[in-house]
Amino acid sequence: MSLLVVGSIAIDTVETPWGRRNDLLGGSASHFSLAARFFTPVKLVSVVGGDWPQEHTDFLASRGIDVSGIQVVPTGKSFRWTGRYKPNMNDRETIDIELDVFGKFEPKISDEFRRSNYLFLANAAPTTQLKTLEQVPGRRLAVADTMELWIQTAHADVLKLLQQIDGLVINDSEAKLLADSENLVLAGHRIRKLGPKFVVIKKGEHGAMFFGEHEAYVLPAFPTEKVVDPTGAGDSFAGAMMGYLAEQDNFEPETLKTAMAYGILVASFNVEGFGLDHMKTVTRDDVEARMKAYRKMLSF
Amino acid sequence: MSLLVVGSIAIDTVETPWGRRNDLLGGSASHFSLAARFFTPVKLVSVVGGDWPQEHTDFLASRGIDVSGIQVVPTGKSFRWTGRYKPNMNDRETIDIELDVFGKFEPKISDEFRRSNYLFLANAAPTTQLKTLEQVPGRRLAVADTMELWIQTAHADVLKLLQQIDGLVINDSEAKLLADSENLVLAGHRIRKLGPKFVVIKKGEHGAMFFGEHEAYVLPAFPTEKVVDPTGAGDSFAGAMMGYLAEQDNFEPETLKTAMAYGILVASFNVEGFGLDHMKTVTRDDVEARMKAYRKMLSF
Repeated sequence: MSLLVVGSIAIDTVETPWGRRNDLLGGSASHFSLAARFFTPVKLVSVVGGDWPQEHTDFLASRGIDVSGIQVVPTGKSFRWTGRYKPNMNDRETIDIELDVFGKFEPKISDEFRRSNYLFLANAAPTTQLKTLEQVPGRRLAVADTMELWIQTAHADVLKLLQQIDGLVINDSEAKLLADSENLVLAGHRIRKLGPKFVVIKKGEHGAMFFGEHEAYVLPAFPTEKVVDPTGAGDSFAGAMMGYLAEQDNFEPETLKTAMAYGILVASFNVEGFGLDHMKTVTRDDVEARMKAYRKMLSF
Repeated sequence: MSLLVVGSIAIDTVETPWGRRNDLLGGSASHFSLAARFFTPVKLVSVVGGDWPQEHTDFLASRGIDVSGIQVVPTGKSFRWTGRYKPNMNDRETIDIELDVFGKFEPKISDEFRRSNYLFLANAAPTTQLKTLEQVPGRRLAVADTMELWIQTAHADVLKLLQQIDGLVINDSEAKLLADSENLVLAGHRIRKLGPKFVVIKKGEHGAMFFGEHEAYVLPAFPTEKVVDPTGAGDSFAGAMMGYLAEQDNFEPETLKTAMAYGILVASFNVEGFGLDHMKTVTRDDVEARMKAYRKMLSF
């Protein structure tokens, strides 16, 4: 089934203990798309400035992603982010962030894209996410991400969003903040009661937790000693999860759990290189091989 | 098969967001024994002072634990620990610690206890652990715990210990320190190369990792929203793991993984009450019911 993602594509500069890379293709919708395309065709809606390198768009297109929804503002500048990771790879500092055209992003969804069945609202202002939702009334499943900034500065809009989406995918610190609980199990249940049918809490190197109406569970991360750059891991997670759900086109408990497992595994590839360097080389066969190892790891 | 644990039994005072409890039965060997006894008979070697409440010993004996190896120093004082947990339940501060008789602990293993097949060296000075090892030459499996203090102040002795034991069970921060790596996967492999046949890294609310010659894996914690007091969770983990191995009396990969799963599950009961309050009420049937739910959680 068709999967639409609306979010940022950006130019990233990243420093980790493994080195520094300038002007990488980044942004939540880029990482999401590269992960989702293993499973289903992906349509991307975003915005860039006149400085956007055409090669980045060409690369996304070369991986089968429908890039016709990327708006170009010739007089504007593209979203740029520069960050540095600490040795533990969990903590990072933003050295510089220039939202530019993404700061004024007003998604315009084409008639064709509006017919998408699966919709992912990558991190953006909740008002922007709500405006996107309105444009895709026939969706079968809408899932959103958010971040601490919006939970703190646009709390009412985040709560409104939660009542209109089917699923929320957020990380552990965001979940604790949103639920006002240090216990993630409690936090997951509390957030689900705010509206979404399911909540997924991403725990980075510790895996992810799922909270639905009938069950709650946790799956561990795939253990890897090669963590080069965690940027976009959460978006890769969401991409693979949504991609698999769109491929299967059902929301059975078994499908949802398998989708979360794919999210975990594809994210484990994402972190093995700078930006999308390693993801570029990964195939569906690689993903399936890792899934086989993962299932074996969890069997006893 | 017979399982011998050598370590502390103590009087704990604990404060958590759920309240404060004074003079609880604590200590690594207490928590270990209460967890291991679900699976196999346990013999306990420790030391207490003249102030030790007989009711604590009676309680351990009432749960089938062989307490004949508890030495009493009538003129000495028992090991006391007072600690406070922060709201996140991961960070704690030691308010007061009085080692007293445990600080001069020289384990004397009786002839009967020396014939034990399975040996767990709970946290103690590595020289004390080495002296214990010497006294149980016919052991089939010796596993040890250690802590940051010894890694920092008795590094050479810890390295000597690692060459004489079959398995090491430590927590994540200890593993990072011992291996000088922020990546736990790398840390586990590095520590295993220092001597032990296997290394288990406990990650608290995030589960545990196993590193053997042929495989490395991670299992998640059992999700619980009722974390009342984490004290002794790691010792409960080790107790259930060693108890199951002694019961099965083999070290097949499948047995080791199942043992780690039991460790995770019994630890999840341990944290649901202050001290050993909840563990007192848990039965093997309760453990098996949780194992069934855990296996279901990890299947998809």
